[in-house]
This record gives sequence, C-alpha cells and structure tokens, in this order.
Amino acid sequence: MTDQDPAIKPWGGRFSEPTDAFVERFTASVEFDKRMYHHDINGSLAHAKMLTHVGVLTEEEHQQIVDGLETIRSEVELGQFQWSVALEDVHMNIEARLTEKIGVTGKKLHTGRSRNDQVATDIRLYLRDEIDSIADALTFLQRGLIALAAQETDTIMPGFTHLQTAQPVTFGHHLLAWNEMLERDYGRLLDCRKRANQSPLGAAALAGTTYPIDRAMTAELLGFDAPTENSLDSVSDRDFAIEFTAFASLVMTHLSRFSEELVLWTSAQFNFIELPDRFCTGSSIMPQKKNPDVPELVRGKVGRVNGHLISLLTLMKSQPLAYNKDNQEDKEPLFDTIDTIKDCLKAYGDMVPAIKPKRDVMEEAARRGFSTATDLADYLVRKGIPFRDAHEIVGKSVAYGIEQTKDLSEMSLQELQQFSTNIGDDIFDVLTLQGSVAARDHIGGTAPVQVAAAALRAEKRLQQR
Amino acid sequence: MTDQDPAIKPWGGRFSEPTDAFVERFTASVEFDKRMYHHDINGSLAHAKMLTHVGVLTEEEHQQIVDGLETIRSEVELGQFQWSVALEDVHMNIEARLTEKIGVTGKKLHTGRSRNDQVATDIRLYLRDEIDSIADALTFLQRGLIALAAQETDTIMPGFTHLQTAQPVTFGHHLLAWNEMLERDYGRLLDCRKRANQSPLGAAALAGTTYPIDRAMTAELLGFDAPTENSLDSVSDRDFAIEFTAFASLVMTHLSRFSEELVLWTSAQFNFIELPDRFCTGSSIMPQKKNPDVPELVRGKVGRVNGHLISLLTLMKSQPLAYNKDNQEDKEPLFDTIDTIKDCLKAYGDMVPAIKPKRDVMEEAARRGFSTATDLADYLVRKGIPFRDAHEIVGKSVAYGIEQTKDLSEMSLQELQQFSTNIGDDIFDVLTLQGSVAARDHIGGTAPVQVAAAALRAEKRLQQR
Amino acid sequence: MTDQDPAIKPWGGRFSEPTDAFVERFTASVEFDKRMYHHDINGSLAHAKMLTHVGVLTEEEHQQIVDGLETIRSEVELGQFQWSVALEDVHMNIEARLTEKIGVTGKKLHTGRSRNDQVATDIRLYLRDEIDSIADALTFLQRGLIALAAQETDTIMPGFTHLQTAQPVTFGHHLLAWNEMLERDYGRLLDCRKRANQSPLGAAALAGTTYPIDRAMTAELLGFDAPTENSLDSVSDRDFAIEFTAFASLVMTHLSRFSEELVLWTSAQFNFIELPDRFCTGSSIMPQKKNPDVPELVRGKVGRVNGHLISLLTLMKSQPLAYNKDNQEDKEPLFDTIDTIKDCLKAYGDMVPAIKPKRDVMEEAARRGFSTATDLADYLVRKGIPFRDAHEIVGKSVAYGIEQTKDLSEMSLQELQQFSTNIGDDIFDVLTLQGSVAARDHIGGTAPVQVAAAALRAEKRLQQR
Amino acid sequence: MTDQDPAIKPWGGRFSEPTDAFVERFTASVEFDKRMYHHDINGSLAHAKMLTHVGVLTEEEHQQIVDGLETIRSEVELGQFQWSVALEDVHMNIEARLTEKIGVTGKKLHTGRSRNDQVATDIRLYLRDEIDSIADALTFLQRGLIALAAQETDTIMPGFTHLQTAQPVTFGHHLLAWNEMLERDYGRLLDCRKRANQSPLGAAALAGTTYPIDRAMTAELLGFDAPTENSLDSVSDRDFAIEFTAFASLVMTHLSRFSEELVLWTSAQFNFIELPDRFCTGSSIMPQKKNPDVPELVRGKVGRVNGHLISLLTLMKSQPLAYNKDNQEDKEPLFDTIDTIKDCLKAYGDMVPAIKPKRDVMEEAARRGFSTATDLADYLVRKGIPFRDAHEIVGKSVAYGIEQTKDLSEMSLQELQQFSTNIGDDIFDVLTLQGSVAARDHIGGTAPVQVAAAALRAEKRLQQR
Repeated sequence: MTDQDPAIKPWGGRFSEPTDAFVERFTASVEFDKRMYHHDINGSLAHAKMLTHVGVLTEEEHQQIVDGLETIRSEVELGQFQWSVALEDVHMNIEARLTEKIGVTGKKLHTGRSRNDQVATDIRLYLRDEIDSIADALTFLQRGLIALAAQETDTIMPGFTHLQTAQPVTFGHHLLAWNEMLERDYGRLLDCRKRANQSPLGAAALAGTTYPIDRAMTAELLGFDAPTENSLDSVSDRDFAIEFTAFASLVMTHLSRFSEELVLWTSAQFNFIELPDRFCTGSSIMPQKKNPDVPELVRGKVGRVNGHLISLLTLMKSQPLAYNKDNQEDKEPLFDTIDTIKDCLKAYGDMVPAIKPKRDVMEEAARRGFSTATDLADYLVRKGIPFRDAHEIVGKSVAYGIEQTKDLSEMSLQELQQFSTNIGDDIFDVLTLQGSVAARDHIGGTAPVQVAAAALRAEKRLQQR
Repeated sequence: MTDQDPAIKPWGGRFSEPTDAFVERFTASVEFDKRMYHHDINGSLAHAKMLTHVGVLTEEEHQQIVDGLETIRSEVELGQFQWSVALEDVHMNIEARLTEKIGVTGKKLHTGRSRNDQVATDIRLYLRDEIDSIADALTFLQRGLIALAAQETDTIMPGFTHLQTAQPVTFGHHLLAWNEMLERDYGRLLDCRKRANQSPLGAAALAGTTYPIDRAMTAELLGFDAPTENSLDSVSDRDFAIEFTAFASLVMTHLSRFSEELVLWTSAQFNFIELPDRFCTGSSIMPQKKNPDVPELVRGKVGRVNGHLISLLTLMKSQPLAYNKDNQEDKEPLFDTIDTIKDCLKAYGDMVPAIKPKRDVMEEAARRGFSTATDLADYLVRKGIPFRDAHEIVGKSVAYGIEQTKDLSEMSLQELQQFSTNIGDDIFDVLTLQGSVAARDHIGGTAPVQVAAAALRAEKRLQQR
Repeated sequence: MTDQDPAIKPWGGRFSEPTDAFVERFTASVEFDKRMYHHDINGSLAHAKMLTHVGVLTEEEHQQIVDGLETIRSEVELGQFQWSVALEDVHMNIEARLTEKIGVTGKKLHTGRSRNDQVATDIRLYLRDEIDSIADALTFLQRGLIALAAQETDTIMPGFTHLQTAQPVTFGHHLLAWNEMLERDYGRLLDCRKRANQSPLGAAALAGTTYPIDRAMTAELLGFDAPTENSLDSVSDRDFAIEFTAFASLVMTHLSRFSEELVLWTSAQFNFIELPDRFCTGSSIMPQKKNPDVPELVRGKVGRVNGHLISLLTLMKSQPLAYNKDNQEDKEPLFDTIDTIKDCLKAYGDMVPAIKPKRDVMEEAARRGFSTATDLADYLVRKGIPFRDAHEIVGKSVAYGIEQTKDLSEMSLQELQQFSTNIGDDIFDVLTLQGSVAARDHIGGTAPVQVAAAALRAEKRLQQR
Repeated sequence: MTDQDPAIKPWGGRFSEPTDAFVERFTASVEFDKRMYHHDINGSLAHAKMLTHVGVLTEEEHQQIVDGLETIRSEVELGQFQWSVALEDVHMNIEARLTEKIGVTGKKLHTGRSRNDQVATDIRLYLRDEIDSIADALTFLQRGLIALAAQETDTIMPGFTHLQTAQPVTFGHHLLAWNEMLERDYGRLLDCRKRANQSPLGAAALAGTTYPIDRAMTAELLGFDAPTENSLDSVSDRDFAIEFTAFASLVMTHLSRFSEELVLWTSAQFNFIELPDRFCTGSSIMPQKKNPDVPELVRGKVGRVNGHLISLLTLMKSQPLAYNKDNQEDKEPLFDTIDTIKDCLKAYGDMVPAIKPKRDVMEEAARRGFSTATDLADYLVRKGIPFRDAHEIVGKSVAYGIEQTKDLSEMSLQELQQFSTNIGDDIFDVLTLQGSVAARDHIGGTAPVQVAAAALRAEKRLQQR
C-alpha cells in the first residue's frame, strides 16, 4: 500500500480514484499543524479516558492507547516521527502511527469524535498555553517599564502634541503612558482567554455523537471551564482566533507607537536616549551607522498582525454552517500572530530596562518651544482674566518671542507686561520647568509626586496578577 | 469680525494670517462630530459643577453656564443652532455660542481642560450610550432566535459540512448555533464597555492642569467607573474605538454567515424557508423576482465594518504621543460602525421571528445524501467493529448506493449485508432521521430534548442580563 | 397612492404586502447614489438615442425623453428635485419623475435595459470623470514639487536611513523622490481608467436583452472604448472600483510618508522647514502652538482609504454571479475614496509650493552625524583598500569620533592616520558636504547637476501628458 | 572568530558589544530571503561586470568573482551551502562565502553598492520571474475555461441574481464571465510588471555612489527596461510589491467567486456539476462525504492574500525616507502571496477541464422559477405596451402562478389572457428556454451563437499573448 492508494486515507471507502498528487500537497496541513502534536495527544488522552469511563473502551485498551500516545509524543520530541503529507494533518498522522503501534485498538480511539471537534479542541488548548506565556511576557515588559518610570519621576522632557513642543512632562510619566496601554491589553487577553477556554470536544462532525459520551468529564480533564453549548457552532466557531488576533493587533499598535518614539529619540535631532549596541545593527556601506533595528522591525510587524486579522475576518465572512475546508486557513495566521507577538514582547522586555535617557538633552529641549505658555495663561486666569482672553494674551507674547527669539522665561518683566499688566514678579517661578510639572498635581497629572504614586499603583496591580 | 479673521479662532493670538478657506473646511470636524452635542454639553456641565466645587467658578457663574448650556441643547434639538465650519468642531461651536449668550463667564468654562480631554470624554460618553443600545438590540434579536428555536426543536433538516449533506440536525439546533455566536458577542461588548468607561477628563492638553481639579468628582458625575491613570495616554488612547470596532466586525461576520444561509435557503434549489414580502424587494426588469435584500445587504456590510477596523488600526499605527491631528479621523469610522451595526441588528431582530421554515422540504432534503451514514458506522462499532473499519464498510455501501441511486435506508437487509454480516434487522430504526437526531443526546447535541433544554438555558441567560 | 402602497415600486406586481418602512430606508441607496444623477441622465440619453436608432422608440418619443431628462437635470441642479426614499435609488427617482412629466413614453425608456447594467454604466461614467480630475490634481501637485526641486538642487540636507544621519543629499533630490512616487501613481491611474472605460450598457439584468440593441453605438455615444464582452460579468464586475481604490491607497501611502516628513521637519528638533500659518492651526489651551494639521490629517486619512479597499475586497469575496444586493455597498467606499484623495491632493498641491526650507539648519544638520563616513571609505578604496576593510577602518574612526565628540572633518590628519596611513591631505576635500554630494554624479544620484537634469526630465514628462 | 564576535558583522567597526543572540535571530532575514539566492547572484554578476567595464575591478578580479559566485550557486542548489543567521541575510551570506573562497577580491564586490539597492534589485528580479510564471498559469487556466465554454455554448442553466432564478443563460456564457475577470487580471499583471521592471541598482545606500558606475549597463544586463530615476526613492519604494499584491487580491477574489459557485453546484441541492474524486477529499467520521476541498480552500485563501495586502500597506504607512528596517517585512507577505496565487491557479488550471456539467439537471432548474418572465414582458412591449406596464402585468401572472404552482409556460392561453388580452398563441415559443436564450443575440448576450463567437475571440486574445 503506497501513498497513492486511496485506501490509505481514513475516508477512502467511497472514492474511486486517488487524490491528485498536487491536490494532496495543496490541501494538506501537516506542515504547519504538526506544532499542535502535544495538545492533540493530550486531547486524545482525555477522550480515551472518558471513553473508558463510559464503557466504550476497556481498561486494557485504554492503557494501550495511553502507552502508544506517550511513545509517539517522545518520538516527535526526539525528532524521530515520520510526518506524512498523504496523511493530511497532525491528527491523522498520530492516529495512523498509533494503529501501526498498537493495532486494532488504535482504530477505536476516534469513536465518538471527528476531526472537526478534534481540531477545534487542539487549537484552543494550544492557544490557551500561548496566551499564558504571552501574559507572562506582558508582565515582564510592564515590570521593566514601571521600574524605569519609578527611576525617572523627576526627569523633565518636552511633552508633544502634533510633534510640537506642548508642555513639559516627566519621562517617568511618559513611560507610564505606555504601561497603561499594555495594562488594557492584558485585560483584553484575559477576557479572550475566558471565552476561548470552552471545550468543543464531543461536538463530533457537527451534530454530536450517538455514543454515551461525557463532555463535562473531558472538559474538566483538559482544564476547560465548561463544554460548549452547541455542536454546530463548536466546529465552525473561530471567534477565539479572531478575538486573539484583534488583541494582538492592539498590542502591536501600541508597540509600534512606542517604537516610533524610540526611533525618533535615537535620531541625531532628538537625541533623547541611547540604546545599547546589542539591540542595534550597522550598515554594509555606511561605517558610522548604528540603527535602531529592533524598534523599526517591531514597528513594521504591526502590519503583519493587522494583515492576519483581516485574513481571519475575510476567511469567516459568509461561511455557512458548519465546518468548511476554508477553516484550515485559520492556523497559519494565528500561529504567526502568536510567534510575532511573543518575539516582539520579548525584544521589548529585554530592551526597555536598557534604555538610557540623556537627561540633560531632554531638559534642554523642554526649555525651548515656549513649553510653559499654558502656565502663563493659567497664571493670568488666577489673576482674574477669563481663560479665553488669557490664551489670546499669551498667544501675542509668543508671537513676540518668535520674532525676538526669546522664550517666555527669557523675557524681562517689562517685556511681559506689554501684553498684560496683570503679570507680576511671581511669574518667573511659574515659568520654570520644575514649577510647571509640579503644578500638575492631581491623579493622572505629570507632577513627580503623582508619577511616583502612579508607578507604585501600577506595580501593585502587577503583583496582584 | 468675519470668519476670515484669524481672531475668531480660539487659538488665533500667535498667528499672522487666517487659515486658508479650503484648509478650514478640510480640517473641520463639525459636520460629523456635532452628533456628540448632547454628550459634549453633559461633559461641560460636569466640568462646570466640579470647577464650582473647587472654587474656580462662583455659584452664580455656574448657574449662568448651566442655563446657557441647556438653552443651547434645546436650540440644537429644535434645529435652531447655527453650526459654523470656521469654529472647527462641536466643542468650539458650543463654547462660542455660550459666550455669545452669557458673556465673559462663558470664556471661563474651558479653564482646566483642553479640547484633547474634552473630545476624549465626549466620545466615550457617546459610545457608552450606543453600547447600551446595541446591547439591547442584541438581546432583542437573541430573544427572537431562541423563541423560534424553541418552536422548532423537532424540525429535521440536513446538517451540512462543506455544504454537503452531513448528518440530520434539527432546525432549532441550527438556530441556537447562531445564538451562541451572538452570546459571545454580547460578552465582548460588555468587556469593551468596561474598558471604555474611564474618565479622561482632567488630562487637559496632555499633562494635566495646574488648577485644583477633582477628577474623581467629574468621573462620578458622568457615570464613569474611575478617572484614567495617565494624562498622556488619556488624550491619545483610541483603544476603545478599535476594540469596539473589532467587536462589531465579529457581530457582522456572524450576521454575514447567517445571511449567507438565509440567501441559500430562499433559493429555488434549497427552498428551506420563506421570508415575508416586507423584507424583500423586486427587480426593475424581471417581474417574477423576490430578492432577499435584507440578508444580502447585511452580508455586504461586513466589508464596511472590517474596513473601518483597518482604518482605525492604520490610523493609530506608529503615532507618537500624545494627541495628533490624525486622531480626528477616528470618528467617522466609529460612527458609521455604530450606525451600521444598529441597523443590521434591528433588521435581523425584526426579520428573524418572521422566518417561516418549510418543514417538509427540509425533512425531505435530510432524507437524501446518505445523511445517516455515520449512524450506520456507529451501529457497526456497537457490534464490535473498530471505528476505522466500520467507516470503510459504510464508505463502500455509499459507493454502491450512488451507483444504484438508493439511499442507505432504501436498501434491503441483504443489500446491506453485502458489506457486513454484522448488520441485522435492527438497522432500520437506526437509519431513520428521527432515530438519528434523537441518538445525539448529550449536552450540545442535536437531540430534540437537548435542543429544548438548550433553548431554555439560553433564555435564562437572557433574563439574567 | 402613497409611499406605503406596494404599487409605487417599479416591481410591485408580484408582492402582497408593502416593504417594511425600516427596510425601505435600510435598503435604499438614493441618499448616496443621487450624486450620479448627471451620469445617469447621460446614460439614459444615449440609451434612448440608440433605441430610436434601432426603431424601438419613435423620433417623437425620443424628443420627449430628451426634453424631460434635461428638465430633470436642471431641477436637480437648482435643488428643486424631490428625492424619494421609497423610490430606492437615483435611477428610479429620475425615471418616475420622467413618467410624471411626459406620461406613458417615460415608461418606455427602460426597454432593453435593467438597473443592473444601468448602475454599472453610471458608476463607470462617474468614476471616469473623477479619474480625469484626479489626474489633473496629481499633475498640479507634481508641477509644484518639481518647481520647488528645481530651486533647491544645491540645498544640502542630511539623508536618512533608519532616521539616522546617513549621507548628505540635496533637498531637491529629496523632493524628486516624492515626485517619482506620484509619477508611478499617475501611470497606475491611467491603466485603471483604461480598464474601467468599457460599456456594460446592454447587459440588462444579466443575460442581455431580446431587443435589437446596438451596444457599440451606446458605447461610442458615452465615450467608452468598447462594449464589455460578457453580460453576466458586466453586471457583477466591481474590479474597477477595487483597482481604483488600490491606486488611491498607494497615493495615500505616499502622501502619508510625505506627511510624516513634514511633521518631523516642522518639529523643534528638526526645524528644517516652515509651513505658512494658513496651513496650520492652533491649540485651545496652549497659546504657543502652531500645528501642522494638514500633513497630520492627510497622514491619518491613509487609514480611511485602506479601509475602503478592504471593504470592497471583502464585499466581493465569494459572491456568486451575477448581481447581488451586496453590491450596493460598493458606492460609499468608492465615493469617499474619491473625495478623500481629491481633497488631499488639493491640500498638498496648494501647500507644497509654500514650503520654506531653512537652508542653514538643514546644512548644519548634515554636518553632524558622520555623514561623510562613506566618502572616507570610498576614498580608501580608491587608495587600493578592499571595500570591506575600508569600512572597518572608518568604523573605528567613527567610534573614536563619538568618544572625542569630533566629526570626521574636524579630526586632524594625524588623528585620521591612526586608522590608516593611506589617508593623505587630499582627504579634506572629500569630507566636505559639497564634495560629498557632487561626487554622486550619475543618473539618479544626488549631485546637483544630476538633480537639475532630473527635474528637467520630470517636467518634460508632465508636459507630455 | 565566532558568531558572537561583533567583528564578523560587515559593519562591526563602530560597535562595542556583540548583538544580543535573540536580537540576532529576531532581525535576521536569511531564513526567508535565501530563496532569492539565484537573483542575488545574477545581480552581483551584472554589478561585477559593470565595475570591470568602468575600471574599478580588473579582468582577473572579475573572473575570480564570476567563478566564485557560480560555485556558490551550485553549492546552494546542491544543498551544500551553510546558511548562517549571524550573517543576517542572503546577501551577506553569499558575500562572506565568496570572500572565504576567493579572498580579498571578494571584499571588492560590494564597491559602489549597498545592501539597500542590492535587495531592491534582487526582489524585483525575483518578482519579475514569478510574474512571468503567473502569467503562464493564468493563460493555462483561461485556455481550459474557454475550451470548456466552447463545448457548452448550448447548455442551458438558470442565470441567477440574488441567488434567485433570473433568466436562462448558457453554461458556456457563464464560464466566459469568469474568463473576462481573469482577462482583466492578466492586463493588470502586465501593467504591474512594466512598473516593477526598473533597475534600482546604483542607488547605493540612498544617495548614489562616488564610483563611476554605469547604471544603464547593469539595467540592460539584468533585463530591466531602464534605471530608476531617483536614488532615495529606489531604496525605499515598495510600490511594486503592493501593486502586485493588489493584483493578486483581485485574482483571488475572482477565484473565491468561482469557488463559491463550484461549492454550490456540487451540493445536493444544486447538483449542477460533478468534480472528479481526485480533487475532493472525504471525512474521518462520515463515510458518505465527498467534499469539494479544492474550491473551499481556494475560497479561504483570498483572506490570506487580502491580509498580505494590508500588511504591506500598513508597513509603508508614514515611513520617512529612505530605507528603514521595517522594510524587511516586505518579503514574507510578498513571497507567500506569490506561492498562494501560483498554487491556486495551478489547482484551478488542472481542475477546470475536469468539471462535468449535469446538463439535464441544469436545464430542469432553468425551467423552474419563472425564468422566462422577462421574455413575457418583452413580448408585451412588442405588442405596444410600455415596459413598466408590461412588468406589472407579468408580476401579477407570476403571483397567480405561485398560487397555482404553475410556471408561465404551463399556463393555458386563457389563463395568460386573464392578465392581458394582448397575449396570443405565439407566446409559447417565447416562453421556451431555447427561445429565451437565442433571443439575447447581441455582443455580450447569452445566445449560443454569441457565446460561440465570444469563445473564439477569447481564444484569439490568448494566442496573441
């Protein structure tokens, strides 16, 4: 019996000619789904235990299956397993090998299940483990961010809107903005896990099975929260893959924003930070180059994950129930999303603690660009001028400053009083950078004391995970 | 003072020439953001109350502002408000009108806030209300689905995989598959609401403000769960819009699948259901046509929402902190997503209870296509044949049946015994449709008794919302 | 007869109940497709002329139709036309009004066509006109770019890779890079036009018509290159909308890159250019702000167009032949893409000639960052050192320069000779910025003489359009 | 010297610590870009020949390089080449091996170029070859389609709109609709090739080079149409990848529509065609299943390609000039798009000629659903009734027919005359399927004679390729 014999297929009975060789390769998934071998075996072990419990298998058969599957697991892990494209997928490869090893009992394992519920089970088990490891990677990165923020609560830098100097902020405050994004991502990840962690096993092909199966038992054995409620939905649902990828798109969007800033900050023009050489590479032609490859590459990878999200949404568009072959296309985008996000989180988790701020450059930059103009307006409001009028007065002072190339704090009292006689001597404290940041002293504000408190709260949230 | 005078702009002080007329129109958002007027006014009312509480405004000023804003709200609702593109957005339009009405006090309202936190607040308030109304629309649709399912627990139809007849299922079971999709969507919506319902008010431009604001107070007044933790993040975060749109993409994906089936089922070839005339339209040229426009249009609209998701993800890609003008582009995709999903859910909520199954056609279709082949295999397993061998035996019976154009239940015992002598007289009960569905009697299975129980559980979940 | 009477519908004969009021609004397209009224009328005029030519209409009937349609065109243009949602779309609104005006002859206009080929014709006519106006907008923008480049062939700025200073380039050269992108876009636009400019009129509902129509005649009357080849394809094809939107995504991608650089260059850190006040806006809270709103907004709008591309691709995914109601969803994304790209090209066309480079700042920036390191390596190669070794030598010189905070041109000959004794006195010419750019003297290189020639060639291509 | 030694990097001179091991793997591209080895070597050969021509290399050096590179090509093809992740990419791997083989001369090959223009050259050469092979695959598929159409010009089937029976068409006509889609795709492919086939070689890092290179010579040697016009653009342009992927998205959209119909047609409900067993697979649980896997999988793969398109567009969004590391992410989406489209076209090219129409079933289906209603309306118009009134009359006849379960052709003359006394005996010829299709006798119409002519024209266009 060769691969060309239709009878090797587990479904060959009704067919009169073998699968076309190209079609066989084209429709096979084993090349990419074999990475689920571990979870496939775990799913089979739970199924076999349940079949034994309900009397479909004998204890002896059960033991044969357990031994056979564990041997196969070792073979895969030792690289000794022969994967066959003719056997289409990870499920059939393992089952065929089991039967080869333990004979007729191997053929009984598939009783009361179908590849449709089997693959749905495997992919959820696989994803659940990856979610847990991504949660850890997020925590690791956040820990580094918060620690750096806690060190830099007093470091002053320009805050930007429209990439124009807006108001002075502290570097610690800026770092915690990134942490907030990741904190929300973490919440989304847990919500996604909760919905994914339901057991489709027992849905069989689409309608359930005539065997007296115990779905609650397999759900529990596999660590699922509960069996799913509807067999048709169970074999066709790929929501969990889409929801996970949408989560990943947001993480990558956040990392792309983070990356953009790191790239800006390592430019000669900003020069706000130094990244260690080990996270950078050079140029084959320009000997002076030290390129921020890691942030750039991470920034580029957001496209990859957004693309996978569209792949999956497009895949599921207008598919009738229940399982269709199209669904085989769910795996590569999902797997690559998992790999990408894990790599990017690791790269950032390692790199963030190594960011070296150039505090003097940052502070000097904050000093330029009329960054305390709002403070002057607020000062005028405190002197009784309506905010909109104060804004107008300061606008004119800035126009004067641009003309004279003087920042507000560099003008004399007389110069300032041209624009409003309400300005007094006390204005110069208001116009210092330290005064400016310290004055934003409320929850969420950039005052060092607030930033320190925010870092503490952030750290506490991590500890409670 | 005309619109062309730079001084009309709330920020004109520093500028030496007026905005280009085309640019003014190009950068204005009032055409689409005016729909947030109600929430903008509510946000301002809370802000004013808090400013009064902390002593920035007097009680008298507060009352003037309240009266002014409520008058403006009426003006808008009566269609008497003059929106001006020169005033850029909903915020400036309302504030300018307020100052026109109550004079200098109106200019004090913007104390301690910026358009950056104002728009972030408005859009969250707006979205929260829409989320609540979408939640209701989901519940309404699910109620109709579950009620129909409860009526159709015994109706037999062919279950499909690969659009090939697979196994008989009940129509009620099929309907509940759709309900499961919507149930997960509902969960995602609530999770999204939870993350969106945080108050950015007080973040001001990006760094907080120097006024002694009470962010917890405004958060509470506006029904937010808490103030946000970081001002930079608060003004630049659009996660809530992306997460909501990702939720919407999944709902639309589910409705597109539902639609695909309704379109198939109203075709002459399937002919499984009848849709009332009021949900269909005709052809300008072909007098006999009755087209399932509603499902088709809903199916088409999944593209729209997926597109908006990509718009928003692309928008946020690699934006540096904090607010950038790009963010103005968040509103149209979000608003259109809201409108689309509400319309589609309403259309389905109205239409679903009016679906009329053609029970005879469905059952007749289930009878064809060897739909009970799995039951025969399971029967053989119960007679002691390993599943894989039973599968092979049935495959050969089917090949014979195709040749002879006989379904399994139409073969004589002798004919069946050609393929296995294990087949006995009792096989004919197994091969009935009723026997087949009744045998799938476990949680999630298609047995009528299970479907009835599932409908009840589903209804109970709705009641607990 | 009211809107609620099914008989008002041009297809009501077979229906027993009126369309649901919500469904009527939900499925109507007149709100957005009425913008095609001009092209709809032109299409009808051509159709009527042809029907007269082949004897289906009399000359008198023809004249009535022509007069009626031209009156309707005026009514629309004067804002006197009453659009009715109950009449669904632009086609039925106009036809119903025509019949109201000229009686029974109006009912004959639809002979031998269907809304399916009518809408396919209208949208192609509409798009073709818009393509022509977009082509003009591209040319206008390119003209401005090239003129600016021709002025700035000698202006030196740092060229960047990885946003790190790489090598000096000229500003004119940089501007022409953007022109190349737009030049390719122009080519794509023409290719798209060619494929779109085929006449579907005569395909009728899907199969053609039994009347003796002359499709070549209507194609010619409407300025199409030819009639389409297949009626089924003609009514279902939306390739032209997708191809156009893909073109638009590329234009917007290019403008987003252009925008990113303008935003960077107007930052305090780069400070390379000045944008006139009329293209910028201010802040409601920070009086000093002058924000590059136009580039930011354009950058944000790339998401919008990419989203529309996905909408359209998703829309068409797996639609069976021929026309389906889903296709109604093609218009809004297409129309918004057209509007967006026209606005963005206009904004850029106006703004680009007003960009003021700060030549001193640019040149000073080029002087920093070891931008002539490659020139030193090339110098060494000319002295006989293999390139890879030269690279290594210069790498070490740069490391020394960073440590000593000296650029290469600031080192003494002795210092340079530490790294290679092949370095002689003639090195200092090589290390000037002018020397560096002038040396890249080949087609496509940054030497001023090459840039001037390239600007000339670019201008000549424009003239040949 | 180990991989950990920074000095192994071609750019290590300026660096003080080695690349982090994870970062090295994370930033390396050799795993996926090694598939361009053949084109990388060809590019180097042309570059070396040109350097020799202009006097930078000696003839002897040239010969060494040629011999070295050809040996390396053989090593790769024989699977003997040792790829090193530490050497980052295909370019550096090959260059390092060359130097290992031929010593110091190998180090001279990179004179006057950079990896930036090198990779831009390689990827265009690679893509050009793939475009040519995709063009062949399109032609092959079209040839099969047209041949089948030519056989089926008289086969009648129902034409659908809204998946409702609309009018009878011929199967050949339907097949040619698909051919038209592919014909446009072919045109787009050629247009894309034309824009991609420009030589970036000589752009060097971003600004050109100081060596006296001859870009026209390398362009010609490599079969490019011309050198590119601007060096900055040359190293950063990825338009060709985006345009190609947009082309591929359209092809896949077309194949997804084709697939949808094949899936419908192989269902028990439609039963219009038979696909050979060799293009189908079975079920692991349901022994009777024969699933149309190839169409389903192809339908699913449209998501994959649309996703890649979004990846690339997102990647390029707002990237400043010139080359950024992000661009490394262009390759995997492009390569996978190429592989996917080639596989899908091959699968369809093989499968289409094997489609077996079930002519009786198709014709019988066309007989149902009042498919000749339009013919009746057209008949009435010829009797002098305005089209809109004729439509109304037929609508009422159909309503009667539904009630009586009689098709129009099954009604007696008397019954028909209830609706219009203009109906005479000659109506029965009009209501036959053959009469209906034959009457649509104009270019693009479904009359067999037109379909035959269209197939001929289509075939002729293929021959002129």
